[in-house]
Amino acid sequence: MNKKIILINNPAIEMVQGFHSNGIASGIKKNGNHDLGVVFFDKECDGFGMFTTNKVKAAPVLVSKKHIKNKIRALFVNSGNANACTGESGFNDAINICKEIGESFNIPYTSVIPMSTGVIGQRLPTTVIKNGIIKISKIINEPNDNQFVKAIMTTDTKMKIYGVKVKTENYEYSVIGCAKGSGMIHPNMATMLGFIFSDAVISKSMANKAFRSSIDKSFNSITVDGDTSTNDSVFLFNSNCANNKPITSSNADYKLYEEAVQMVASQLARKIVEDGEGATKLVEVEVKGAKNIKQAKQAAFSVATSSLVKTAFYGEDANWGRIVCAIGYSGIPCKPENIKLYFDNLLLFKNGEPTTFNEADASKILKKTEFKVTVDLGIGNKSWTVWTTDLTNEYIRINANYRS
Amino acid sequence: MNKKIILINNPAIEMVQGFHSNGIASGIKKNGNHDLGVVFFDKECDGFGMFTTNKVKAAPVLVSKKHIKNKIRALFVNSGNANACTGESGFNDAINICKEIGESFNIPYTSVIPMSTGVIGQRLPTTVIKNGIIKISKIINEPNDNQFVKAIMTTDTKMKIYGVKVKTENYEYSVIGCAKGSGMIHPNMATMLGFIFSDAVISKSMANKAFRSSIDKSFNSITVDGDTSTNDSVFLFNSNCANNKPITSSNADYKLYEEAVQMVASQLARKIVEDGEGATKLVEVEVKGAKNIKQAKQAAFSVATSSLVKTAFYGEDANWGRIVCAIGYSGIPCKPENIKLYFDNLLLFKNGEPTTFNEADASKILKKTEFKVTVDLGIGNKSWTVWTTDLTNEYIRINANYRS
Repeated sequence: MNKKIILINNPAIEMVQGFHSNGIASGIKKNGNHDLGVVFFDKECDGFGMFTTNKVKAAPVLVSKKHIKNKIRALFVNSGNANACTGESGFNDAINICKEIGESFNIPYTSVIPMSTGVIGQRLPTTVIKNGIIKISKIINEPNDNQFVKAIMTTDTKMKIYGVKVKTENYEYSVIGCAKGSGMIHPNMATMLGFIFSDAVISKSMANKAFRSSIDKSFNSITVDGDTSTNDSVFLFNSNCANNKPITSSNADYKLYEEAVQMVASQLARKIVEDGEGATKLVEVEVKGAKNIKQAKQAAFSVATSSLVKTAFYGEDANWGRIVCAIGYSGIPCKPENIKLYFDNLLLFKNGEPTTFNEADASKILKKTEFKVTVDLGIGNKSWTVWTTDLTNEYIRINANYRS
Repeated sequence: MNKKIILINNPAIEMVQGFHSNGIASGIKKNGNHDLGVVFFDKECDGFGMFTTNKVKAAPVLVSKKHIKNKIRALFVNSGNANACTGESGFNDAINICKEIGESFNIPYTSVIPMSTGVIGQRLPTTVIKNGIIKISKIINEPNDNQFVKAIMTTDTKMKIYGVKVKTENYEYSVIGCAKGSGMIHPNMATMLGFIFSDAVISKSMANKAFRSSIDKSFNSITVDGDTSTNDSVFLFNSNCANNKPITSSNADYKLYEEAVQMVASQLARKIVEDGEGATKLVEVEVKGAKNIKQAKQAAFSVATSSLVKTAFYGEDANWGRIVCAIGYSGIPCKPENIKLYFDNLLLFKNGEPTTFNEADASKILKKTEFKVTVDLGIGNKSWTVWTTDLTNEYIRINANYRS
């Protein structure tokens, strides 16, 4: 890791100047788990958001898309209920949550970003949420062990938080992010929900540039099950509280900021795949030797989303033919005789037929919990990488009984 | 059913004049199951084929694409090995099979259609196959219980054959088809392999027209796991042996022929989905109220291929939000407030929010082994229907250990 960018062990949102957070079990989830979280900003912040491309957008997404244009003072998330497919009533519920936050924290309701995640198509329990907000407003400054990150989880098995400190001779600031997501993971906005906080001093336009460039290679390059949800959103908020000289152009300081944001986004995205519903393996799929990025991306996603490829990973079966097959139906122009296929560094296929690789060597790689599949199309020099999982019995179990 | 088109109980390929078939266990499959089949044609026939759109085409597909332009005398299929991703050697193996058939049956090798299905990337056991062909050539006219249909199966649990008789005051002829397919089922050419035989007298151009129109709404409208294989192919062969007046224009007799071919194709396609790997449910997904067919198709496939939708079917969970979500990310323009969603005749969603339907009624429908999901987009009058399955633990089991 670049010496100027230092990994923070045990990061917490509070380590970023200007932000306070907490989370509680308000009673939305039947099982009594945490389900309501708030991040409160000491002062007005610039916020940036990217939202699901699904035509069916959840009510909080519609409200957040409006509010993100304003200066932001608070962020609300509930899990256990997505407030999606709930019509005008659901939209009003999301607005009313903002108003509750506004009243409890004494800020304009239009400076609140509301987010919801969980089951689709049920009305929010608004009284439960109202009481929860009042409760949180009283403990927002109390020390807590990332209860906000805990509160945004649904089928996640692990809390997902990652942070770095940018430290030079002249200044230091932090970039810390958290995310939730495990199923319905697919670009665009594979995150389900992602939040990145920084206290760097940076102009709105430069922060926006760094935000957008970092998402494509992180949250937009992972897949668990190919479903794009109604609620997927990712955000960046800057408090501008640190002591760095304001970043207003694409100079070296900007590059450092961009790198830090990219690093946090990538690690969070990777954590989501690692925690993919039922997943036992994290597989990096790189397609290289493509004529252009679009081709490389399309081919990589074709492999990374194939049920048959993912099931073979689960079975630890070196059924490489399914990968060549998925390249073949990806829709890109390609010829089998140009393709080379590797598991880690083991070459399995070239000149249109299998090499004389040792089956035991291939099995050894597939038995690992993390490995890499590389497909060289042999027709250019562009590449793209996607992270995916295996497809397992546990995925079926989790999703067959999700609502019950 | 139209009185002129009569269902044949216990159909067999031999019931179509001019065709003889048989199948054996030649030793390609380790488990000793049937794996080699031949259909022999008494005289030269017109043949029509549609092949996988996968850029990685198996060797027999490449050979068949050439040979189908000739008059056809025989059809060869082996299961247990797909002869795909086998390079030039594999191509030569496919040609040599045609030559073996040519020699054993005393016909030109260019009049043979070879087909293979099974594991990708392994060379065919050519000596085993050669011996099998000699054996079959000796028993090709012997009565047998559809051993050819048995020989083309891989992970299929059931033999798939369906046939009708077209009977008018003036003439009668048969249309009988068989297919294999269970996984890697997705258009184009969802069939894996499908063969339709008829003894109707019909011009090449009219038979071709009927063939192509029937495939779109049958083999091209089913999905099991979203994977399009390297070997998918479907064929129609006409022996012209019946006593009907030659069909040479789009008259009423042609319509009858087209309807019969369409019926056989649809039933075979449906049988493939019904026997989908691990499937416990057959679900018809109709998207109607679309502006055009393309939109309807795209939306229907988005629902029919969603892992989350299919897993909810398996769990018999009325998680209808996942269906609305899949419409939302299908890429078609739509507004939630226009959408209506039904399970059979039960309306679950309209005006952008759930109706006050009874959860027990929805569960009752989902507990059936066959039911229908209808999505009305509310923006036009075009519709499309796709057949799909649930996604189950058994699918994972079958495909995780396929090669072992």
